[in-house]
Amino acid sequence: MICKKCCKKAIIEYPYPMCDQHFRDYYLRTIQKTIEKYNMFNKEDKILVAVSGGKDSSALVYALYELGYEFEGLYINLEIPNYSEHSENAVKELFKLIDYRINIIRVSDYNIRVSPIYKRPICSVCGAIKRYLMNRFAYENGFTVLATAHNLVDEAAFFLMNMNSGQIQYLIKQEPVLPKENKFVKKVKPLYFITERENMVYSVINKLPVYYGECPNSSGNPQSKWKQILYKIESENPGFIRNFINSMLKLKKYINYPEKKGEIFCCKYCGYPTGSRSRICSFCRLQKYFNNSKKA
Amino acid sequence: MICKKCCKKAIIEYPYPMCDQHFRDYYLRTIQKTIEKYNMFNKEDKILVAVSGGKDSSALVYALYELGYEFEGLYINLEIPNYSEHSENAVKELFKLIDYRINIIRVSDYNIRVSPIYKRPICSVCGAIKRYLMNRFAYENGFTVLATAHNLVDEAAFFLMNMNSGQIQYLIKQEPVLPKENKFVKKVKPLYFITERENMVYSVINKLPVYYGECPNSSGNPQSKWKQILYKIESENPGFIRNFINSMLKLKKYINYPEKKGEIFCCKYCGYPTGSRSRICSFCRLQKYFNNSKKA
Repeated sequence: MICKKCCKKAIIEYPYPMCDQHFRDYYLRTIQKTIEKYNMFNKEDKILVAVSGGKDSSALVYALYELGYEFEGLYINLEIPNYSEHSENAVKELFKLIDYRINIIRVSDYNIRVSPIYKRPICSVCGAIKRYLMNRFAYENGFTVLATAHNLVDEAAFFLMNMNSGQIQYLIKQEPVLPKENKFVKKVKPLYFITERENMVYSVINKLPVYYGECPNSSGNPQSKWKQILYKIESENPGFIRNFINSMLKLKKYINYPEKKGEIFCCKYCGYPTGSRSRICSFCRLQKYFNNSKKA
Repeated sequence: MICKKCCKKAIIEYPYPMCDQHFRDYYLRTIQKTIEKYNMFNKEDKILVAVSGGKDSSALVYALYELGYEFEGLYINLEIPNYSEHSENAVKELFKLIDYRINIIRVSDYNIRVSPIYKRPICSVCGAIKRYLMNRFAYENGFTVLATAHNLVDEAAFFLMNMNSGQIQYLIKQEPVLPKENKFVKKVKPLYFITERENMVYSVINKLPVYYGECPNSSGNPQSKWKQILYKIESENPGFIRNFINSMLKLKKYINYPEKKGEIFCCKYCGYPTGSRSRICSFCRLQKYFNNSKKA
């Protein structure tokens, strides 16, 4: 298989055969177009990029660096044994390579830990912690935009999962940009049209320091089942995942969903917004739970 | 596995284990609820049911009969060798069983045949012929409603297929009812929430005369690929197909799609509506094509 644009050997087949150089151009162009199309940010913004040490966020960091954006990184050490130390090392190496600032925080600094609580699965607790801490860190340090490495396959899996559970209110919110609101900073997904495989190839050709280990808790992640399904469909219908998301975005242009905005309160402990009438946000509830269990 | 409602042996597992009698109740109740919820028809309507001799339409006929509706059948003999004669026999037997009138027409009566034409695949030609003849027969014979046996899996496959091709204008139209308009009679799908498997089980427990042979052209049917995919997903996530369609219907309530209604003309040959500026509908174009090829 040879590159569609030159005679060199192709390293990737879809959306068309490309050699390493033409893939790199395609990859960066796709991200830049996404940033511009959705007004994600410009060079005046103070950008924070959330990183995990994995291929997706490492590829995002390096791509934004290659595209000439300035930003800082945020790594949240989740203190998961045999996992977090490796990912932290990969992140540190990556930021050393590009010579940008990386901010590192640890869940224990917030008297919290990633573990299942009551009947809530561990991945759900972990997600809530990360979302809260990313936003709080960005807000308190004056960042105007928080970029995450959610990719095309994440989005499609989330879509299928919510179609199966009937939670269409989440489908409606599944956008490349979530605007700033209250104490929530603007959130953007520059890899919205990039597949996991493309992030992997980009990481490999740039020899990025990536930790490829899987989170020991990931088997509990409900999204991974839907990703497997999507890959099965994709293998028989190359392009399906991208077409699916594009159709969804087209369809959503015509959706007029009456957002039921409940009253928003200020958490009495941290001051961040919460929909809970108890005026305790879910992060502070987790903190309280772990404090009590420590005392017990 | 035993029936959830009594101690008899269950014959079907999903949506819950049911014996033959309770399955029959569930099946007829689901259809009756669909008919009422979407105002498909009532006992004053003059109903035409399109039948093929296969399990889905035979189950529809018998269910409507058991529910006490009066109607006539329409069988279009497509004159596909080693196939159409068997399906016609099954249809005749079924209507003898319930003692209702069955109307039979043959494509050759209209100087047409089911075959690929130019680059148009055979299943697409066949679909166009059936849609045209069903509507024309219903309209010319004063039927107020045309019922077809499209089922839940047909609908979900059609949805996936159109998400893949990006033709969202077809998704928007994917409703249990298409209202009467111009010379198009009202079209309804009473099996919208019934799976293929349920139609099969209902046909078997009622010992309906069904022709189980597959159309020799069916390998060219693009929908069947998407059905296979759906069955794979369903096997690992029982209920997925039903949840998927329910979510889609929920989502569509909020869609406001500006229907681009092009000008509608009268076909200068048959007088039925067509969007073509040439004033020749696609059925009459097919007729013309076959007439010319006969002369050649």
